[in-house]
Amino acid sequence: MSRSKHKRLDPAAYAEGVLSGDRSMLSKTITLIESKLEEDQVLAERVLQLLLPHTGKAKRIGVTGAPGVGKSTFIEAFGKVILQGGHRLAVLSIDPSSKQSGGSILGDKTRMEELSKSPNAYIRPSPGGGYAGGVAISTREAMLVCEAAGYDVVIVETIGVGQSEVQVKEMVDFFMLIVQPETGDGLQGVKRGIMEMVDTIVVNKADERSRQSAAQTKRELEGACQLMSPRSGAGQITVLLVSSVEKRGLEEVWAVTQEFFGKISATGFLGENRKAQRNHWFYAHVQKALEQRFYQDPHVVTKIEEALGEVKDAKELPAAVARNLVNTFFKASD
Amino acid sequence: MSRSKHKRLDPAAYAEGVLSGDRSMLSKTITLIESKLEEDQVLAERVLQLLLPHTGKAKRIGVTGAPGVGKSTFIEAFGKVILQGGHRLAVLSIDPSSKQSGGSILGDKTRMEELSKSPNAYIRPSPGGGYAGGVAISTREAMLVCEAAGYDVVIVETIGVGQSEVQVKEMVDFFMLIVQPETGDGLQGVKRGIMEMVDTIVVNKADERSRQSAAQTKRELEGACQLMSPRSGAGQITVLLVSSVEKRGLEEVWAVTQEFFGKISATGFLGENRKAQRNHWFYAHVQKALEQRFYQDPHVVTKIEEALGEVKDAKELPAAVARNLVNTFFKASD
Repeated sequence: MSRSKHKRLDPAAYAEGVLSGDRSMLSKTITLIESKLEEDQVLAERVLQLLLPHTGKAKRIGVTGAPGVGKSTFIEAFGKVILQGGHRLAVLSIDPSSKQSGGSILGDKTRMEELSKSPNAYIRPSPGGGYAGGVAISTREAMLVCEAAGYDVVIVETIGVGQSEVQVKEMVDFFMLIVQPETGDGLQGVKRGIMEMVDTIVVNKADERSRQSAAQTKRELEGACQLMSPRSGAGQITVLLVSSVEKRGLEEVWAVTQEFFGKISATGFLGENRKAQRNHWFYAHVQKALEQRFYQDPHVVTKIEEALGEVKDAKELPAAVARNLVNTFFKASD
Repeated sequence: MSRSKHKRLDPAAYAEGVLSGDRSMLSKTITLIESKLEEDQVLAERVLQLLLPHTGKAKRIGVTGAPGVGKSTFIEAFGKVILQGGHRLAVLSIDPSSKQSGGSILGDKTRMEELSKSPNAYIRPSPGGGYAGGVAISTREAMLVCEAAGYDVVIVETIGVGQSEVQVKEMVDFFMLIVQPETGDGLQGVKRGIMEMVDTIVVNKADERSRQSAAQTKRELEGACQLMSPRSGAGQITVLLVSSVEKRGLEEVWAVTQEFFGKISATGFLGENRKAQRNHWFYAHVQKALEQRFYQDPHVVTKIEEALGEVKDAKELPAAVARNLVNTFFKASD
């Protein structure tokens, strides 16, 4: 008897559904990918294997920004500009905080309402819960499925908790930071380290009435960017003013995006970057598979609290506690 | 028959030697920690276990900076100021690049020559080679041994390749970035993301003849720091001008360091931070132990090149290749 809530199909059935543009099959395939059941994971892998030759053709765009800067509103408005260009857009999200906060900010069904009505857009919130690394892995695979389904622009959105931007950076070609106009002392809303990872910064909410503070924020950001080393494969960070509500500046963001892709395709950076990313994901999957086996092992489950207690009180060396637990694990699985 | 090049002693012999201040035993213990032989690692762990109650009392200081900024010269001059205060200083280094470059920049025997002559200073370059994570783990353990040997200030130095600063950040209480005066367009020498991790920036080479450019660099850095969010447990980043050659500004660096430690001790951040670090190192050790078993497994060794080739050419899913290899590994070890 299967423990799964959904009926499983043949791998070919999922793959054919996705390739034919069947949205329901697309969603089912992503649900399969997100499943924590071993059987589902094996099946998901076979589906992905069939889809693999049809992936890689989309522009992969990351979007990050603190809560409240208007990320959803921006993506909705920006998405419409993309659709107007004849593209098909998928929006995926990574929200490792959703478990802790008791409800995903990304699970809100009313968000991106207009965009989600378009037949050429597909919006998929991240599953609630799960550890950040696992969510990142399944989001990357969901991105591949969307590519196979013919979406030629994929936006991966993250709220930017913990390491999630680093993980988004590792799966996209182009990374955008959304901020809002700042009032007062400096760029308080810009998370440490994030500016070092992004290709473009969008100052959102540059509405008519906030014109001055938005321009000031832009200047401060440009000043800060000048202090940074130029990145490989891309030029200096562009800072853009956008009013998602008043629909201003959005075409410019899309123009900058397309120009960026033209540049990194020409230099070969796009292909090299994706190769390096695949390598990165191989090691990430090895680590995930090893740690999954380890932390789900019954012996480890019974011993881990005690182990962490010893480590916290500095009674035992972290190395010794870890090694003992790993040795126990391998002995038990002999 | 032992495969080790050195004769092994009792754990107690190492521990007693270290605790009595025997420098030769201190070095032997660190060599043991750095060894990749299973027998040495087990022995090292037993020695560390004996030393554990005698650790934790040092000020743990990280120092990073690009090659050429004068890190060694700074540490030598700064170290003398520390020694003048009646302290005992150990300097350890992480240099994951040493394997690739065919020779460690830190292995240079003439560096920190004066400092190394003092009976109250202990200089230890990182071992050549090894992967960054492993070098970081052994450096952290070497730090504990130095604390047990009575060194009450430990400087961990890194050249800042790859993730090495992140790893140093995870083992120290106070982190310093060394830069040099910049000429021309912006702070080219400041690595992306690094400013987000440090507590103090030292503009080295602020010699008499470079006074103007040093002051300009200081102003630019202070401007950039103001754009960053304040960190937990510590105040705004301090930027200091130092001439290691002309011996100017060094007492001020030490005063700022001591003030910082006073603050984080008073707020409890020091203890909390170390607790969190121990937790971090437990998980790092679990990962290391699992991956060590995996990547050293004969089956994995024969298969890994082929696996990476498949991943690189995008012929196979990274997930599938990784999972197959992990499954093979567990089946083989059954």
